[in-house]
Amino acid sequence: MGRLAGYLPVLDWGRRYDRQAFLSDGMAAVIVTIMLIPQSLAYAMLAGLPPVVGLYASILPLVAYAIFGTSRTLAVGPVAVVSLLTATAAGAVATPGSAEYVTAAITLALLSGLILFAMGIFRLGFVANLLSHPVISGFITASGLLIAASQLKHILGVEAGGHTLIELGRSLLPALPETNLPTLVIGGAATIFLFWSRAKLKPALEHLGLHAGAATLLARTSPVLAVAVSILAVVSLDLEARGVAVVGEVPQGLPPLSLPPLDPGLWGTLLPAAFLISIIGFAESVSIAQTLAAKRRQSIRPDQEMIGLGMSNLAAAFSGGYPVTGGFARSVVNFDAGAETPAAGAYTAIGIALASLFLTPVIFHLPLAVLAATIVVAVLSLVDLGALRRTWRYSRFDFAAMAGTILVTLAAGVEAGILTGVAMSLLLHLWRSSRPHIAEIGQVPGTRHYRNILRHDVLRSQHVLSLRIDESLWFGNARAVEDVIQRSVAERPRVRHLVLNCAAVNGIDASALESLELVSHRLAEQGVDLHLSEVKGPVMDRLAKASFLEHLTGKVFLSHHEAMEALAPEITRLADHADRPAMDASRPFPERGSAAG
Amino acid sequence: MGRLAGYLPVLDWGRRYDRQAFLSDGMAAVIVTIMLIPQSLAYAMLAGLPPVVGLYASILPLVAYAIFGTSRTLAVGPVAVVSLLTATAAGAVATPGSAEYVTAAITLALLSGLILFAMGIFRLGFVANLLSHPVISGFITASGLLIAASQLKHILGVEAGGHTLIELGRSLLPALPETNLPTLVIGGAATIFLFWSRAKLKPALEHLGLHAGAATLLARTSPVLAVAVSILAVVSLDLEARGVAVVGEVPQGLPPLSLPPLDPGLWGTLLPAAFLISIIGFAESVSIAQTLAAKRRQSIRPDQEMIGLGMSNLAAAFSGGYPVTGGFARSVVNFDAGAETPAAGAYTAIGIALASLFLTPVIFHLPLAVLAATIVVAVLSLVDLGALRRTWRYSRFDFAAMAGTILVTLAAGVEAGILTGVAMSLLLHLWRSSRPHIAEIGQVPGTRHYRNILRHDVLRSQHVLSLRIDESLWFGNARAVEDVIQRSVAERPRVRHLVLNCAAVNGIDASALESLELVSHRLAEQGVDLHLSEVKGPVMDRLAKASFLEHLTGKVFLSHHEAMEALAPEITRLADHADRPAMDASRPFPERGSAAG
Repeated sequence: MGRLAGYLPVLDWGRRYDRQAFLSDGMAAVIVTIMLIPQSLAYAMLAGLPPVVGLYASILPLVAYAIFGTSRTLAVGPVAVVSLLTATAAGAVATPGSAEYVTAAITLALLSGLILFAMGIFRLGFVANLLSHPVISGFITASGLLIAASQLKHILGVEAGGHTLIELGRSLLPALPETNLPTLVIGGAATIFLFWSRAKLKPALEHLGLHAGAATLLARTSPVLAVAVSILAVVSLDLEARGVAVVGEVPQGLPPLSLPPLDPGLWGTLLPAAFLISIIGFAESVSIAQTLAAKRRQSIRPDQEMIGLGMSNLAAAFSGGYPVTGGFARSVVNFDAGAETPAAGAYTAIGIALASLFLTPVIFHLPLAVLAATIVVAVLSLVDLGALRRTWRYSRFDFAAMAGTILVTLAAGVEAGILTGVAMSLLLHLWRSSRPHIAEIGQVPGTRHYRNILRHDVLRSQHVLSLRIDESLWFGNARAVEDVIQRSVAERPRVRHLVLNCAAVNGIDASALESLELVSHRLAEQGVDLHLSEVKGPVMDRLAKASFLEHLTGKVFLSHHEAMEALAPEITRLADHADRPAMDASRPFPERGSAAG
Repeated sequence: MGRLAGYLPVLDWGRRYDRQAFLSDGMAAVIVTIMLIPQSLAYAMLAGLPPVVGLYASILPLVAYAIFGTSRTLAVGPVAVVSLLTATAAGAVATPGSAEYVTAAITLALLSGLILFAMGIFRLGFVANLLSHPVISGFITASGLLIAASQLKHILGVEAGGHTLIELGRSLLPALPETNLPTLVIGGAATIFLFWSRAKLKPALEHLGLHAGAATLLARTSPVLAVAVSILAVVSLDLEARGVAVVGEVPQGLPPLSLPPLDPGLWGTLLPAAFLISIIGFAESVSIAQTLAAKRRQSIRPDQEMIGLGMSNLAAAFSGGYPVTGGFARSVVNFDAGAETPAAGAYTAIGIALASLFLTPVIFHLPLAVLAATIVVAVLSLVDLGALRRTWRYSRFDFAAMAGTILVTLAAGVEAGILTGVAMSLLLHLWRSSRPHIAEIGQVPGTRHYRNILRHDVLRSQHVLSLRIDESLWFGNARAVEDVIQRSVAERPRVRHLVLNCAAVNGIDASALESLELVSHRLAEQGVDLHLSEVKGPVMDRLAKASFLEHLTGKVFLSHHEAMEALAPEITRLADHADRPAMDASRPFPERGSAAG
C-alpha cells in the first residue's frame, strides 16, 4: 500500500467499487438513515443543543469518515456518551440555549478533530490504553445512568438540571408535583413501547412470518414509529396547548459551511475536555470497528482510525455540528443491513441531508418526551452492573478501579469520574508492579532443572543464592527488586555468590539498570559476587552498551546449571529455616503471578 | 519482631545499647553537628526563611527519626532540594520574610509529616515508584542548577529573585552593575576555597601525615572554617559598613513548642506541594539509607522509613521548623565518623540545641555570601549532566524523560518539572507496553522445541498458527495483543486453529481478560478455534474463576508440542511469504525485548 493511499483508504476500496456493492450499501444507508434521524435529534437535545445541530453532525462527518476511515461498516455520528461529555464541557463555559453554548460545542468538535488527527499522524493511538477496560466499562455504565436520570425531566415535563446524580436528584425531586400528565403519558408510553420492541418485537415479527434478518432491522426502526405516532397524537389532540413540550422550529436546509470560532481563550479552557472526548470517543469507536471487522475476517488500522475520526470531527466543526464518533447500535444495523464499504456512510449522509431539507416542518410537533424515551432506552442498554460482579470475582484491583470510576462519575460528574478511573488504574498497576514475583530456586535432584524452593524439594548451596526474577524490570518494580535482593542477602550471612536467573526478563529500563548497578555495588561491599544467568539476547546487548557488564563482579552464564557447576560444586538440602531469604520469612513477599512449575 | 516494636525500631537497638556504641555515636555526632550548623543556616536561607528556622528543623526532627527510623546512619535535617520546593510552595502563597511565609513553611512540614505517616501506615511506599531514576536524577540536576543560580545574588550582593532560570536571569542581569565588591570578594573567596577543599584538602591533609579517615572528616568541616574566617573578617574590617549583608539577629534559645496553624484553606492550597515534597524527600532519603545499610550488610524497611520521616516532619512542624529529610553528604559523614545507631542523630540534636542556645550571637556577623557559597558548592555536586549522555546511550525513551524533566524544571519551575517527568515516564512506559513482543513460533525439526520463525529454520502447519506472547498481559498492552492476533489471522485465511503459548505470561488483568474473550469470540466467528498452551498455574486459576475456559472454543494444552501433535499432524517448511502474519509483513511489528533463542 502506498504512503498516500495509506492515509486515504477510499483509494483502495473505491477502485474496486461495483454495482453490487452500491446496491448493498444503498440498502444499508436507507435503514441507517431512518434510525439516525430520531437519534441525531435526541442526542443533540441530550447535549443541550438545538436539534438541527444533531442533523448537521450527521451529514459531512459521515462523508469525511467514508474517505478517511478504515472500518467498512462503522457508522459515525452523534452518540450518547460523547453528547453527555459535550454538555458538561459546554455547560461549564456557557448557558444551554445560548449562542455561546453552540459555539463551545462547535469548538469542542474542532479541537477533538485536531487532537485526533495529530495523534493519528504521530501514531499516538496507544494513549487510549490509559483507559483500562474496567474504567471504560464503569464509565459507560455510570454515564448511562446519569443520562437516563437527566432525561427524566423531559418525560415528566418539568424543569430540572445538573451534572451529577446528586444535583439531578436535588433539582428533580422538588419539581415532581409539577409533572405534566399528558407529557408523562406520551413519554411513559414511548418508553414502554421502545423497551418492549427492543426485547420482543423481533420474535413477534418472526412469528408473523418475517425473515429473521428483516425482523431484526425492522425492530431497530421502532423509534421512528414512536416518533411518527407521537407527532400524529400531538397534532390531532392539540397536546401542545396542554403543556406537552415539542421540538419546535427547526431551520430548514443544508448545514452552513463556516469557519469555526478561533478564540484562543476558549480553546485553552476547552482543551482538556476535548482531549477526554477524543480519547473516549476513539476507544469506543475502535472497539466497535474491530468487532465488526473481525466478523468478516477484515482488519482495521487504529492509527488511521484516529485520522478518520479526526477528519469527521473537523467536518462537524466546519458545518455547524458537534463532536461525533462511531455509534454501536447504528454500526451493527449498518453491518446487518449488508453495508459493504464506507460508501454506505456517504449515502446515509445524503439521506440525512434530504431529511434536513424536507422533514423539518414535520419534526416541529415531535414531543421532547419521546426523544427522551429513545435516549433512556438506548443508554440503559449500555448499563452493565453485572460487570461489577464479574470483575470482583476476577480481580479485586480491577474491581476497585471500576467501582471508583462509577461512584465518582455519578457523584462528581463525568470528568472527575474518568480522571479518577485513569489515576486509580495506573496507581493499582504500579502497586502490582512494585511487587514483582521473585523466587529462590534450587536444583531438582538428578536433573539440570531449577525450580522454586517453596514448591519443590530441591538442592541448594550455602554459599550461592539463586533468585529467579519473573518480570521485565522497569521503574515500577526496580526499587522492589533492590529491596528483595538486599533483604535476602542480609539474612544469609554465609552467601558469597548471588545468581540472578533472567530467563523471564524481557526488558530492563534505565531505572532498573541503575538499580542493578546499585545492587552490584552494594553486594561487592558485602563481599558477594553478582552473576547473571540465561539473559536474553536483546537484554544482553543493552547491558553491554551501558558498560554494566564491565563492572560486574561475577559472570554471565548461558544456563543456570552452568552457573551452579562453576560456583557451587557442593549442594545439599538446606534445612535451617533461618537460612531462607527474607521474602519467605515473617514478612512474606506477596506472590503475584507465579513461577512455572 | 512484635507489631509495636516494628513501628518503634528504637526498642530493638535500644535494648542492646552499650558504652562502645555510645562513644562511637557521640564522636559521629560532634562531627555532624559541626557540619550541620552552617548547612542548616544556609538551607533555611535558600528556603527564604529566617536562619533560626533551619536550626529548629535540626533538633526535634532528628530525635523523632532516632526513635522511628530504620536506618542506623541516616542524618535527617534541612536539605537543598526540599528547601527549594519549600521556597516555591511558600512563595506562591506569601512574601518571603513575612510571618505568613514562615507559617506556610511550617504548614508544609505538618502536611508532609501527615502524608508520609499515613503512607507508611498504609504501606503506600510504592507511590515513590512514580519517580523513575531518569526523572529524579534529571530533577535533582536541574534543581541544583536552579539553586546555584538563585544564590548568585548573595555572592554578588544584589537584589534579585525568581523561580525559573529565565526569571532568575531576567532579574539578575540588570542588577549586575550594582554588584557589591567586598561581598563578591568574600563570596568568591569562600566559593573557591570550598571547591578546592572538596577536591584537594583531603589529599593535602594526608600528605601532612593525617590518617586517611581523619583527613576525610576534617575536609568535610571546611565550611565551618570558611564561616569562622569570614565572621572574623567582617568584624575586624567592619565590612557591614561597606555593604556586606550578614545574617543578623538570630533569636537565642530552644525551639518554641507550638501547635502548627490549622487553616483548612491554606492546607488545601499547599497539599499538592506537600505531596511532592513528601515523595521526593522520601525517594532521596530511602536511596541514601539503603546504600549506607548495604555497606554494613544491614537492611532498612521502606514503609517504616515513611513513618520515621513523617514523625520527623511532624516534629519540625510542632517546633517551628520546616520540611526535612535525609541528607546525602551529612549521612555519609555520619557513617564514616562511625555512627552505629540512630542515637547519633539524637546526640547531633543536642549539639544543634547547644548551638542555638550559645552560638547565635556569633552568627550575627556571618556574611550571607559565605552561606550562599556553601550552598553553591554543595548543590553543584548534585549536578550530573553526564547522566544525560549515559542515559542517551542506554535508552532513548529514558533520555527523553530525563531531558524533558531538566528542561521543564529549568524553564518553568520545580513543580511543572517533576509533573512533566512523571507524566512523560508513565506515557513512555505505556507506549513501550503497547508494543509487547509477540513471536510466531514453529518446531525446531526433530525436537519438541518451538522457536521464533524469524530467527530459526522451523516447521509450521498451514492450518495452525502458533503465537508466543512474551509479556504479562495488562491494560497497557491488551489492545495491542488483540490487534496483532486480529491482523495475523486476517492475513492467513487458511488458518483454523490459533495456539497462544503463554509460558511467559505471569499475569492477566481484567482488561486483558476482556481482550482475550473478545479475541476468542471474534475468532469463533471466523471459524478459528483458540487454544492456549503452557499456561502458568496461578494464571490458570484466574481464568477458571472468570469462566473464560468454559467458553473457550479450543483446549488448554500443558505443552506446546502436545498442542501441535493434537491439532497439526502435518507440518512443513512454509515458504509462501504471503502466509506470514501481518506483524512481520509490510508494517513490521516493533520488537522489544525478544524471544529466548
